[in-house]
Amino acid sequence: MTRHFHHDRPFRLESGETLDRLEIAYHTYGRINADRSNAVWVCHALTADSDVAGWWPHTVEAGRFLDPERWFVVCANIIGSHYGTTGPLSENRATGKPYYNDFPLVTIRDMARAHSLLADHLGLGRINALVGSSVGGFQALEWIAEEPDRFDRLILIATDAKASPWTIAIDETQRMAILADKTYGEPSPDAGSAGLAAARAIGLLSYRGGSGYNASQKDHARYAPGDEHRACTYQRYQGEKLCRRFNAYSYMSILNSFDTHDIGRGRGGVKAALSRVRTDAIVIGISSDIIFTPAEMKELASVIPGACYEEIDSEFGHDGFLVEHESLNNILYPFMTKPQ
Amino acid sequence: MTRHFHHDRPFRLESGETLDRLEIAYHTYGRINADRSNAVWVCHALTADSDVAGWWPHTVEAGRFLDPERWFVVCANIIGSHYGTTGPLSENRATGKPYYNDFPLVTIRDMARAHSLLADHLGLGRINALVGSSVGGFQALEWIAEEPDRFDRLILIATDAKASPWTIAIDETQRMAILADKTYGEPSPDAGSAGLAAARAIGLLSYRGGSGYNASQKDHARYAPGDEHRACTYQRYQGEKLCRRFNAYSYMSILNSFDTHDIGRGRGGVKAALSRVRTDAIVIGISSDIIFTPAEMKELASVIPGACYEEIDSEFGHDGFLVEHESLNNILYPFMTKPQ
Repeated sequence: MTRHFHHDRPFRLESGETLDRLEIAYHTYGRINADRSNAVWVCHALTADSDVAGWWPHTVEAGRFLDPERWFVVCANIIGSHYGTTGPLSENRATGKPYYNDFPLVTIRDMARAHSLLADHLGLGRINALVGSSVGGFQALEWIAEEPDRFDRLILIATDAKASPWTIAIDETQRMAILADKTYGEPSPDAGSAGLAAARAIGLLSYRGGSGYNASQKDHARYAPGDEHRACTYQRYQGEKLCRRFNAYSYMSILNSFDTHDIGRGRGGVKAALSRVRTDAIVIGISSDIIFTPAEMKELASVIPGACYEEIDSEFGHDGFLVEHESLNNILYPFMTKPQ
Repeated sequence: MTRHFHHDRPFRLESGETLDRLEIAYHTYGRINADRSNAVWVCHALTADSDVAGWWPHTVEAGRFLDPERWFVVCANIIGSHYGTTGPLSENRATGKPYYNDFPLVTIRDMARAHSLLADHLGLGRINALVGSSVGGFQALEWIAEEPDRFDRLILIATDAKASPWTIAIDETQRMAILADKTYGEPSPDAGSAGLAAARAIGLLSYRGGSGYNASQKDHARYAPGDEHRACTYQRYQGEKLCRRFNAYSYMSILNSFDTHDIGRGRGGVKAALSRVRTDAIVIGISSDIIFTPAEMKELASVIPGACYEEIDSEFGHDGFLVEHESLNNILYPFMTKPQ
């Protein structure tokens, strides 16, 4: 069940702009224990929501690393998103209408500060484990750089401490596709939907990579010239599917947030920021991930004091973090249950 | 100087449709020798033209593998393109107007058959070397599968015998971006230009890959939050640059052709088709190519009887075939000059 935290004071953004109020949608699973030592915070990626058990199969289950019998698991929808937290479709009190394109730039740091507010509200002074994959990992790194003493464990999967030129180029290309759809900008939640579908298809290319498509989208043995290729149907289906559950304004907002990511900003660079981490940390790469490559994940692990590196062998690229839940659990269940 | 071959008879396409005439634009460099044994045919890729010396730096030069003192080099613009060969902007005699979206589906096999017509017209019964990289390699493989005895040498760079689900997904995503631009379909050469720019940006992601962007599009040391990222400027610049020299209809036509590629069609499959090749063949992969990976290039080489495999170590991805002309020449100059 989605819960809501209403922060009815202005929320000042890193850009200097202010949201006149902030609503945060979140989910919790399990119960906080007597000494409040079993909280686990999961940060979600791009278009996901706060329902971890929904988007991350076989994680919030008995015998899994997010076992709700053991842990009090929290996940909050990020600012700019579409699932209950303040975003471009929220009412702008100044105009009485949705923000749409006037929604201010939100940085990953702003997202992490919103998580911190919610954690305070929930009385979670100390959090046992902070978990983030992809853009979720961006938030986790921002948060731990800001409050290094709040966490006992850090789990980073297929993510990075700073957006790379490559990932920024992928985002810009998605923006170009949205902007090519001239309906984007119209005052409607459906504005720019053809562009959004194309943007999603671009994202998917980067999430799956060549090995992912070649493993899963081969044409049927009975393919005949003139038939539609399975890979084509798949791209369009995935684009349309996102349009049914998301909106182009939120998507654009989160892409823009992505590009701001640099935990070294104002902290003397990435290495200095990561040197603050005093937490038991694990970094997990996926062998075929072309967004956050194993080489980059190893580099990230090497810069976090005492962090260990593990790699999941998968042909599903970046999406491996969702698909390979068995391998993930084999690494993370022991990490989450070892005594500290 | 661009030359033109007017094939003033109907040209029947593999689809069963007919172009009422076919014009082919082409370039030649050097001179045919007395025994007509020094012809080299270069097939160009996606949005290139017939001017090899223009788009492939340092190849058609003295001491290079396409040395015009030694070879009579020919390159023909492909059907559907924008550089003088019949394409969507050509006049449809049935209506007296450009074809635009009514231009029929052209297969890679059709392109190869057009090359064959031009070669006959030029009196090149036998061709010493057939060269193709990327979609150029698609044409080379189609042509040699059809006329295996016409060629003495075959050079394939970063290409494949059949379009993979991954490459088809990349193409479909580009089509989605073009179609998201509702001006596509208007009877104008500029129709769909914002979509075309986005499509080009998608293509570039796949040509360069992560290592290419991270090597060349890092933000300046003086980057400050709020500045535009260099990778963003680059994507937009490249998109706009293509719009100034190409059109969305031709781009769409060539994407559609790409997806038809399967030299095994009607020939008992890819392996059977390649077993016809009796030519001295070399296959070259690029270490960081994410479109046609080194593993796929090795596999291709293993299926062509007697072919050898060479790899260029480069961080420029698929574009390495254009960028790494020194490494390429170090492999291909000996291949082109060894006695047969």
